Amino acid sequence: MSRQKYIGVIGAGECDAEFGRLAEAVGRQIASAGAVLVCGGMGGVMEATCRGAKAGGGTTIGILPGPDRADANPYVDVAIATGVNEARNLAIIRTADALIAVGGSYGTLSEIGFALKAGKKVVGLRSWDVKGIVPAATAEEAVRLAAE
Amino acid sequence: MSRQKYIGVIGAGECDAEFGRLAEAVGRQIASAGAVLVCGGMGGVMEATCRGAKAGGGTTIGILPGPDRADANPYVDVAIATGVNEARNLAIIRTADALIAVGGSYGTLSEIGFALKAGKKVVGLRSWDVKGIVPAATAEEAVRLAAE
Amino acid sequence: MSRQKYIGVIGAGECDAEFGRLAEAVGRQIASAGAVLVCGGMGGVMEATCRGAKAGGGTTIGILPGPDRADANPYVDVAIATGVNEARNLAIIRTADALIAVGGSYGTLSEIGFALKAGKKVVGLRSWDVKGIVPAATAEEAVRLAAE
Amino acid sequence: MSRQKYIGVIGAGECDAEFGRLAEAVGRQIASAGAVLVCGGMGGVMEATCRGAKAGGGTTIGILPGPDRADANPYVDVAIATGVNEARNLAIIRTADALIAVGGSYGTLSEIGFALKAGKKVVGLRSWDVKGIVPAATAEEAVRLAAE
Repeated sequence: MSRQKYIGVIGAGECDAEFGRLAEAVGRQIASAGAVLVCGGMGGVMEATCRGAKAGGGTTIGILPGPDRADANPYVDVAIATGVNEARNLAIIRTADALIAVGGSYGTLSEIGFALKAGKKVVGLRSWDVKGIVPAATAEEAVRLAAE
Repeated sequence: MSRQKYIGVIGAGECDAEFGRLAEAVGRQIASAGAVLVCGGMGGVMEATCRGAKAGGGTTIGILPGPDRADANPYVDVAIATGVNEARNLAIIRTADALIAVGGSYGTLSEIGFALKAGKKVVGLRSWDVKGIVPAATAEEAVRLAAE
Repeated sequence: MSRQKYIGVIGAGECDAEFGRLAEAVGRQIASAGAVLVCGGMGGVMEATCRGAKAGGGTTIGILPGPDRADANPYVDVAIATGVNEARNLAIIRTADALIAVGGSYGTLSEIGFALKAGKKVVGLRSWDVKGIVPAATAEEAVRLAAE
Repeated sequence: MSRQKYIGVIGAGECDAEFGRLAEAVGRQIASAGAVLVCGGMGGVMEATCRGAKAGGGTTIGILPGPDRADANPYVDVAIATGVNEARNLAIIRTADALIAVGGSYGTLSEIGFALKAGKKVVGLRSWDVKGIVPAATAEEAVRLAAE
């Protein structure tokens, strides 16, 4: 797995049905692309993306904020319990080769900024409009751009 | 000191003379307001702000990325050596009651996002134009808004 | 993988041939027990244990101190790049269900203390003799005790 | 303050009256020695030491596990809110020039190991008996040894 591409997905811990479908489609495309999904392993966008990746036969890594691996959503294959709360966001970004931001809370903005600082490609799907983000219109396009 | 207001200043580790003067003025105003300056303790905007705060008779805290207190700029009163690199940015934001962003690299954007997520007021001085930031035109206005 | 037992192995980043053989045997036994190996992903005891686990057909997770996944030893399947240096030790311990300490530097002592504080079983193989550690005489016994 | 010696005190978050008196005496001696006290800023040994340091006219730094500066004990002058839980222990050790361990839970053992790995002097007062710790019989002796 270490030799596969790792694509990170960042987004809110709660999301409505529409963003859930979008995140799930992103996960499915990541699996189709033969990449490993890295995310925060919790609910909302993270859970929807993991569900999509597993439906597509992919592998999922969840880097959790809390101290207990059991808190991961049920679609996480490899759960990492950090216990450092939001500081785990930096490990998600450092572990991923490229990132896809789905939607746009402030937590996601913080991760986008850190990823761009670290020189990683960040693709945005209905996310923040900041200089440096590569916008995509669909899940398929987002994954294609991230996997390049 | 624990009962004083703590104002965080975030900005790049390298800056030109113009941003240096702006950051120094912010530090001086923080001291005048009777607040404690919290920053990353290194160079650029951080050093200029600390220099201003000390010139104004204030107190400065530097939360450093590296493992060695000796790396702090010479205007830091209390240096904290974290050894966790950029993860120390979160401690700066959590420790400050309000923040002033001076200028605008991606690291600063990441801190702005995290601060807004944490519910802290963020005042921007020639910084990122994102929803939630309170823009200020001068160092004096920035500190007045942050200290409110 | 999330449902398998995760066994952590802690030990020095450099080791002599004798400790290398011991660590490799531990890795092989972890694979035989059907558990996932969690470690720091670098050299010495970590690399030897990963090599043993892969030789035994197991799965290995390396939680790295640095910002770059490419720094993992070649026997790591899932590499997590944290960038927080030794603070990543806490994630190793929180992620593991039980731990095996191989040998005994001060870094290992620190991890033993933290693991015992977190209520995890710690098995010692020629390691520190502190209250709370369960001593084992062989790699096989260590893994049997840790996997219980 | 940055030029003063920083002495770290590590010990349990809860302690009985006897250890409380010992910790308080350590704090008072640190103040007498003209050093700054660095600790975890919470209760038990930490609070008793801070109380002693303030009674002696010294300065106290508390590096807190949680996200809120208000959680510091009332004798902390400079509170740093990290939000990374036990990972903040590493910042205490890196920030201190030398450490005094008062008493002996597993959390303290973990910090002792990390401090010795980082090459810091660790003085033990009724603490763990591990190789590398310098034992002291009284608070006065502990501070004298740490301040050397």
